[in-house]
Amino acid sequence: MHRETLVALDRTTLELIDRYWRAANYVSVGQIYLLDNPLLREPLAAWDVKPRLLGHWGTTPGLNFIYVHLNRIIKERDLDVLYVCGPGHGGPAMVANTYLEGTYSEIYPDIGQNEEGLRRLFKQFSFPGGVPSHVAPETPGSIHEGGELGYALVHAYGAAFDNPDLVVACVVGDGEAETGPLAAAWHSNKFLNPKVDGAVLPILHLNGYKIANPTLLARMDDEELRELFSGYGYEPFFVEGYEPFPMHEAMAATFDTAFDRIREIQSAARRPGAEAKRPRWPMIVLRSPKGWTGPKEVDGKKVEDFWRSHQVPVANARGDAAHRRVLEEWMLSYRPGELFDGAGRLLPEIAALAPEGDKRMGALPHANGGLLKQDLVLPDWKSLAIDVPRPGSPTAETTRYMGAYLREVIRLNAETKNFRLMGPDETASNRLDAVFEVTNRVWMERIEPYDVQLAPEGRVMEVLSEHLCQGWLEGYLLTGRHGLFSCYEAFIHIVDSMVNQHAKWLKTSAELPWRKPIASLNYLLTSHVWRQDHNGFSHQDPGFADFVANKKADTVRLYFPPDANTLLWVTDHCLRTWNRINVITAGKQPQPQWLTAAEAESHCRAGAGAWDWACTCPVGEEPDVVMACAGDVPTLETLAAVDLLRTALPELKIRVVNVVDLMTLQSHTEHPHGFTDAKFDALFTRDRPVIFAYHGYPYLIHRLTYRRTNHHNLHVHGFREEGTTTTPFDMAVMNELDRYHLALAAIRRLPGLAGRAETAVAAIERKLAAHHAYVRQNGEDMPEIRDWQWASK
Amino acid sequence: MHRETLVALDRTTLELIDRYWRAANYVSVGQIYLLDNPLLREPLAAWDVKPRLLGHWGTTPGLNFIYVHLNRIIKERDLDVLYVCGPGHGGPAMVANTYLEGTYSEIYPDIGQNEEGLRRLFKQFSFPGGVPSHVAPETPGSIHEGGELGYALVHAYGAAFDNPDLVVACVVGDGEAETGPLAAAWHSNKFLNPKVDGAVLPILHLNGYKIANPTLLARMDDEELRELFSGYGYEPFFVEGYEPFPMHEAMAATFDTAFDRIREIQSAARRPGAEAKRPRWPMIVLRSPKGWTGPKEVDGKKVEDFWRSHQVPVANARGDAAHRRVLEEWMLSYRPGELFDGAGRLLPEIAALAPEGDKRMGALPHANGGLLKQDLVLPDWKSLAIDVPRPGSPTAETTRYMGAYLREVIRLNAETKNFRLMGPDETASNRLDAVFEVTNRVWMERIEPYDVQLAPEGRVMEVLSEHLCQGWLEGYLLTGRHGLFSCYEAFIHIVDSMVNQHAKWLKTSAELPWRKPIASLNYLLTSHVWRQDHNGFSHQDPGFADFVANKKADTVRLYFPPDANTLLWVTDHCLRTWNRINVITAGKQPQPQWLTAAEAESHCRAGAGAWDWACTCPVGEEPDVVMACAGDVPTLETLAAVDLLRTALPELKIRVVNVVDLMTLQSHTEHPHGFTDAKFDALFTRDRPVIFAYHGYPYLIHRLTYRRTNHHNLHVHGFREEGTTTTPFDMAVMNELDRYHLALAAIRRLPGLAGRAETAVAAIERKLAAHHAYVRQNGEDMPEIRDWQWASK
Repeated sequence: MHRETLVALDRTTLELIDRYWRAANYVSVGQIYLLDNPLLREPLAAWDVKPRLLGHWGTTPGLNFIYVHLNRIIKERDLDVLYVCGPGHGGPAMVANTYLEGTYSEIYPDIGQNEEGLRRLFKQFSFPGGVPSHVAPETPGSIHEGGELGYALVHAYGAAFDNPDLVVACVVGDGEAETGPLAAAWHSNKFLNPKVDGAVLPILHLNGYKIANPTLLARMDDEELRELFSGYGYEPFFVEGYEPFPMHEAMAATFDTAFDRIREIQSAARRPGAEAKRPRWPMIVLRSPKGWTGPKEVDGKKVEDFWRSHQVPVANARGDAAHRRVLEEWMLSYRPGELFDGAGRLLPEIAALAPEGDKRMGALPHANGGLLKQDLVLPDWKSLAIDVPRPGSPTAETTRYMGAYLREVIRLNAETKNFRLMGPDETASNRLDAVFEVTNRVWMERIEPYDVQLAPEGRVMEVLSEHLCQGWLEGYLLTGRHGLFSCYEAFIHIVDSMVNQHAKWLKTSAELPWRKPIASLNYLLTSHVWRQDHNGFSHQDPGFADFVANKKADTVRLYFPPDANTLLWVTDHCLRTWNRINVITAGKQPQPQWLTAAEAESHCRAGAGAWDWACTCPVGEEPDVVMACAGDVPTLETLAAVDLLRTALPELKIRVVNVVDLMTLQSHTEHPHGFTDAKFDALFTRDRPVIFAYHGYPYLIHRLTYRRTNHHNLHVHGFREEGTTTTPFDMAVMNELDRYHLALAAIRRLPGLAGRAETAVAAIERKLAAHHAYVRQNGEDMPEIRDWQWASK
Repeated sequence: MHRETLVALDRTTLELIDRYWRAANYVSVGQIYLLDNPLLREPLAAWDVKPRLLGHWGTTPGLNFIYVHLNRIIKERDLDVLYVCGPGHGGPAMVANTYLEGTYSEIYPDIGQNEEGLRRLFKQFSFPGGVPSHVAPETPGSIHEGGELGYALVHAYGAAFDNPDLVVACVVGDGEAETGPLAAAWHSNKFLNPKVDGAVLPILHLNGYKIANPTLLARMDDEELRELFSGYGYEPFFVEGYEPFPMHEAMAATFDTAFDRIREIQSAARRPGAEAKRPRWPMIVLRSPKGWTGPKEVDGKKVEDFWRSHQVPVANARGDAAHRRVLEEWMLSYRPGELFDGAGRLLPEIAALAPEGDKRMGALPHANGGLLKQDLVLPDWKSLAIDVPRPGSPTAETTRYMGAYLREVIRLNAETKNFRLMGPDETASNRLDAVFEVTNRVWMERIEPYDVQLAPEGRVMEVLSEHLCQGWLEGYLLTGRHGLFSCYEAFIHIVDSMVNQHAKWLKTSAELPWRKPIASLNYLLTSHVWRQDHNGFSHQDPGFADFVANKKADTVRLYFPPDANTLLWVTDHCLRTWNRINVITAGKQPQPQWLTAAEAESHCRAGAGAWDWACTCPVGEEPDVVMACAGDVPTLETLAAVDLLRTALPELKIRVVNVVDLMTLQSHTEHPHGFTDAKFDALFTRDRPVIFAYHGYPYLIHRLTYRRTNHHNLHVHGFREEGTTTTPFDMAVMNELDRYHLALAAIRRLPGLAGRAETAVAAIERKLAAHHAYVRQNGEDMPEIRDWQWASK
C-alpha cells in the first residue's frame, strides 16, 4: 500500500484551504437552490428557493476539494494545470471555483464579485436562459462536458501531448470508471512521452455511488485497486476519509508527493541522452463520501455518503418548511460570515489562496484552445498532384496522394509540433504510409529490433480503439492543435456518440464570443463499404454520413472526392477550416483518376458540377437523363454506365454530374454550402430523370433534396445492406450500384425509346447474368470489368 | 507468478492432439489458398491457387490450438463448452474445426467428409457466393462475429448468465483487448454468480501484433499483466512458448487446473447455505507466435511471430512459383498424409479426440439459441392498463405502467429464468422500479446494510456502461433467452455500432434455415430529448431512430407510444416477436393519458390512425388540415394546438392523426408494416397540408414518406439541435415543436382565412412572447401550460 507520510502543512494554510473549500461548497449549494437571499442575510423563505431544483450535488464537494488543493499547489510551484472534470454533471463546482478565483466575473461581467453577482450566479444556474447544470462550453477553464461519461481521461491525455509544461489533473468519477472508453483510456500512458509531452495526473474519485447503485470500483478493496492500477502502469496513492482536516492534510501531502514524482520523471526523461522508457506515473485514489458535508439524512433516509445525494438532496425546499430548514442549516454550516465580506465578496485572505492571472485554472489558455491555435503551414497541394493526361488514366491508389500531402504537413510543422494523425492501426493499410518517411508511430513500450516505424516520439498515434483515437484528437484540438483521424468507414460508428458530443460542444462554443475557434475535427473514412476485400458484411456500413448530417449545418461537411486530385484539394481545404466536423470518404484501392489538378480545383470549389467531357448532351442543352454520382466507386460505375448507354443509344443526351460536397444538395437556406434552387435546377433539371449513384444509404440523398423541384425524378442507387465477402464489382451488383443496373435504370425511365432500348436492356441483362456466373466460378471479376477504361471522346 | 506444475499427459494423447492441431491448421491454410488439389496429391500448380487471396492467417493457429485442447477436456469431463472467438476474423479456424468434428458436414451436406468435400470447403471460403472470411452466422458453433472487435467477453458473460452448466471459453485477441468495451468487460465477473450462472474462462491470446503494430498487452511484462488481471479480480495462468509439444503439455495442464478451479468455485457456491461472494475466477494468458507454424520468412522479411503474418503471408502464390513453393512446403509441413485417409477423411484415431453429438462445440445448442428458446409467459396487459375515463385524464408517468408489466413478466418467468432487464443505473430513474417488488439488481460485490435492491441473484443488471448492457443482452438473446434494455435516449448512440453488428447478424441468420429465430432485441428509450430536466444539451439526441432506420426493413421497428396503454400494448407485442430490433421511445415524466385499453389496442394494431375524438372534421369528410404526431410530447403539443385552433377558428376541419408504429409511414413495398398508398392517402389526404409533430429529427419523416402523394405538403416539426437546460415546454418552443408553433404552422398553410386567421396569429404570437418572458423570469412554465387539459368535446 502506498500511503505517504504526511508533511506538515501549517495550521493557517489548512484553515484557509478549508475556508476556501467551504466557500466553494456554499456557492455550489446556492446555485442549485437559491433564487435570492444569496448570503442568507434573512431567514430562508419559500420565494428564495427556485421552483425547479435541478443539478447534481453528490460529486460537487469532492470536485471542490480537489480544486482548492490544486490551487494551493499551482500557486506554490507556479504550475500550469488543466482541470479535466470527468463528473461534469457537477457543474456547480466548476462554476463556483471559477467564480471564486475571479475568472467568471472577468468573462461574464454581469456576474460581479458582490452580493448581486452572487445572486445572479445562483439564479442563472440550470435556469431558462441561464447556464447548463453540467460543465459546458459556457464554463471557463473547461474543455470537457462530462454529460456523457467516459472521455475525461482520454481528453486529458490529448491535452497533454506536445504540451511539456502542462499538468492535466483529471478527475475520473467512479461511475465513469465503469465505462468502456474510460477503462481503455488508462492505457494512454503507453503513448505519453515524459520528454516531450506534459503529464496527466488521474484522480479516481471514489464517492461510492451512481444514481441509484454503488459503483464497482468503490466496492473493490484497496488491494485490488492497487493491483489494477499498478497493472495499468501507474503508482497509485490513496487519500481516504471523511473528517475535513485530516483529509486536507492527506490530500496536500499526496499532491506534494505526486507532483514531486511528476517532476522527477520529467527531469530524468529530459536529461540529455536519457533513455526513453515508460515511467510509472502517479495517480490518486480519492475516497470521500458522496454528498460530503451535505445533509446526513432527509426524511429519515440516509443521504450523505449514499446515492440519495446524487442530485438534489432536499427535494422540496420551496414547498416544505422542514425541508427548507434542512437546506438553511446545511448552507449555514459553511459559515458564510467567515467567508464573504459585507458586500458579498470572498474575503481577501481566502481569495489569496488562488493563483493569479492565467495560472488560474479558469483562465488557463489551454482550456480555450483557440487562443493558442497556430495555423498549420500547408504545402502547395498542386505540387503533389497526380498527372492525369486524360480522364480515367492513370489508375492509382487515391489515398496515397493524401499520404504524401500529410507527410508534407508533418514536415512543415515539425518544429511547431501541432499536428497529429490518429488511426486504429491502419495508417499503412489506408495507404498513408508516406508519413513514415518523416515521422514514426509513438510507442513508449519495448521496441524490438525488427519493429518498424515505432519510436518514443512521432506524429502518428495508433491504437486498436476508435474511442482512444477520437478522444485523444478531441483533447488535442480543444487545446489548440490540429489533426486528422483515419478510420475504416464501418467502424467510425463506434464513436458516433463522441462525435455527437463534440458537435454539441462546437455549436455552443461558436455562440460564445470569448471561446476562440479551434481546428476542425477531420476524418478520412476509407476501407469503405465497396472495397472490403479481406472482410465482409461486418465491415460494410456507410451510415456515418447520415449520422453527421443530423448535426447543425454550420458544423458539418461531407466530402466524397472521386479521385486523388479532388482528395488533395479537399484535404487541404479541411485543414484550413475551424469549428467544423469534416468527413472525407475516399477509397484506398487502385482506381481510375479523372481530373487534373486545375479541373479538381474548380470542381471542388463549386462542390458539384457537370463533367462536360463525359456528357453526350451539348453544354446549354437539356439532357434526356442526368447521371449523377457521389463517391469514388459510384463515379466509376456511373461513367462505365454512360459508356454502355453511349454505345447502345448514341442519340441519348446524357449529362454527368459529380458531387464532391454533399451539402450542396441541400437548400442554401438550410446549409451554407447548399445550392440555390436555380443552381440546383440548372444542374439536375426541373423534370428529367436523374439516376443518382451514391456511396452510402440512398435515403440521405432523398432527404437532402426533398425540397428540390425535380425531387420526384431522383432515383438513387446506393448501399441497401446487401453485403458479404465477394468481389468489389459483385458488391456493387448486389446493391444495384453497378454500371449495368445504372444503365438499366436510365433506360427504363426514358419514354419512347422502344425497339433500340429493348435490345439494349436485353444485352445488359445478358451481361449481368454472365457476370454472375463468371464471378461464382472464378472468384474474380470478368476481365472486361477489371480492365474497363473510360474511352475519351 | 502462477505457473502450474505440469501434469503428465501420455505421449499418445499428446501426439494425437498435435495431429489434430496440424489437421486444423492444414484445413485453415487450404481455405485461404486453394481452389483445388486439396490433399496436395499433385505438385501445387498455379490454377490450384485462388486468384484473390483473402483471409487472416495470423490468429488462426492459436485459435486451432485452443479448440483442440478444449475438445480434449470436453470429452474427458463431459462438459458443455461454448467457444466465443474474439478474433473472429480467424474464420478459417472455426470452419476448419467444425468441419473436422463433423458438424459442418451435417449442417451443409454438400461439404462432405471426403476429398471433394474438402475441395468445396476450401473453395467456398471468402469466395463469391461462398462463406465470409470471418466467423459469421454461417459458422456453426458461433454466436459472435468478431469483425468489429470489442465484444467477445461481454457476449461470453451474456451467454453464461442463467446457464449454470455451461462453460464459455472466450478467446480475447490482444488487438481486441485494446478496445474500450473489452477493457470494461473484464469487470463482468462482478455480476456472475457461481451458484446460478455458468462460468466464463477468458483466454487472452497474446500473439503480439495487430495489422501493422505490436499490441499493448503483448509488450507488457508478465508481472504487469498479473497485476492487471488480479486487479480485475481474476487468477491469471500463463501459457507461453513456441515449441508445439511443450506448449501442448502446458496448455493441457493449465486447462486441467482452470477447469478444476471452476468446478471448485461452483461446488463451493452451490453447497446449501453457502455464502454468496465473488470468487477469483481463473483466466489464461496464452502467449504464442502470430502466424505460428506458418512461413518464418517470405522474401527475406520476418513473417512468423510478426504482423506480416496477419492476413495472407505468401501473397502471390498463384502468380509466383517461388511463393507457391513456400505455400506448398508450408502445407506439407503439417504432413497431411498422417492426418487424412486416402478418401480425404480425417483418420479415425484423430477424429476420436473430438467430443460427440451436441458436446461438439460446433453443435452446441447454446450457439444456435433459437433451439433452446422458450417463449415467455406473458401477463394480460389489459389487467395492468390505466383507466382513462376521458382523453387527457388522468395524468401519469407512462413508463411506470411498463414497469408493472415487466414485474409480471419477471414473476411469471421466475422459474424459467430466461428474462433479464438491462440498464445503465437507470431502472428506477426510468420508473421501472415496480420490478423490484419481485426481484433485485445482481451484485456480487460487498452489500451494505443500507443498500437497497441489491442481491447476488436478480433479473435486473445495472452498470454504468451501455456497452456492457448491450453486449450482455446480445449474448443472452443469442443463447436463447429474452430481455429488454432501458436506456437514456441520447446515450444509446454509444452502442450504435454494436446494434449495427447485431442487425447484420440477424439479417444473415434469417437467411439460414438451420439458425432458429432468437428473441428480439428490445429497447426502451426514455429520459428523452424533450424532458432533460436535470441535464441539458448533452442529453438531447433523438437520432437513434435514424440510425436504426437504415437497417434492413425485416429487422427494425420503431414505436412511439403516446401514453401508458399504448406503451403496454407495444411492450407486450415486442416481447412476442423474434429476430427483430424493437425500439420503443416513451417518456417517464407525468403526462396526460389519452386512450383506454381497448382504444390503445385497436390503435396500435393499426399502427397509425385518426383520433376521431380529437378531430373537428367529421369522419368521412376531407379535412382542411391534418395535424399528425408521433411521440408523447408531440402528441400532447399537437392536441394543445388543436385546442387553440378550435377556439380561434371553429369552422376549421382538422383531422388528428397519431402514429405509434413509425414504419407505417413507409411504403408497404419497402417495409412489412408500411401502409399501402391508398391507406396512407386516406389518412393523410392527397393534397391538404399536414403539420407533422415528430419526436426526433424531422428528416426521418421526410425520408420515410418521400414517395407518398402528399409528401410536398408535409411540414415536419421536430428536434433541430436547439437544446439546453430549460423547462420542458421551453425546449419544445426552442425547436418549434410546441402548440403555438404548430398552430401557427397550420394557420399559415391555409388559404383564404384572412381576417380571423390574422387575429389568431397575433394572439398566438403574444402568447409566445409571454411564455418567453415568464419562463426566464420564473424558471418554470406558465400555469396555463402546466395545467393545460384537453377539453373533451
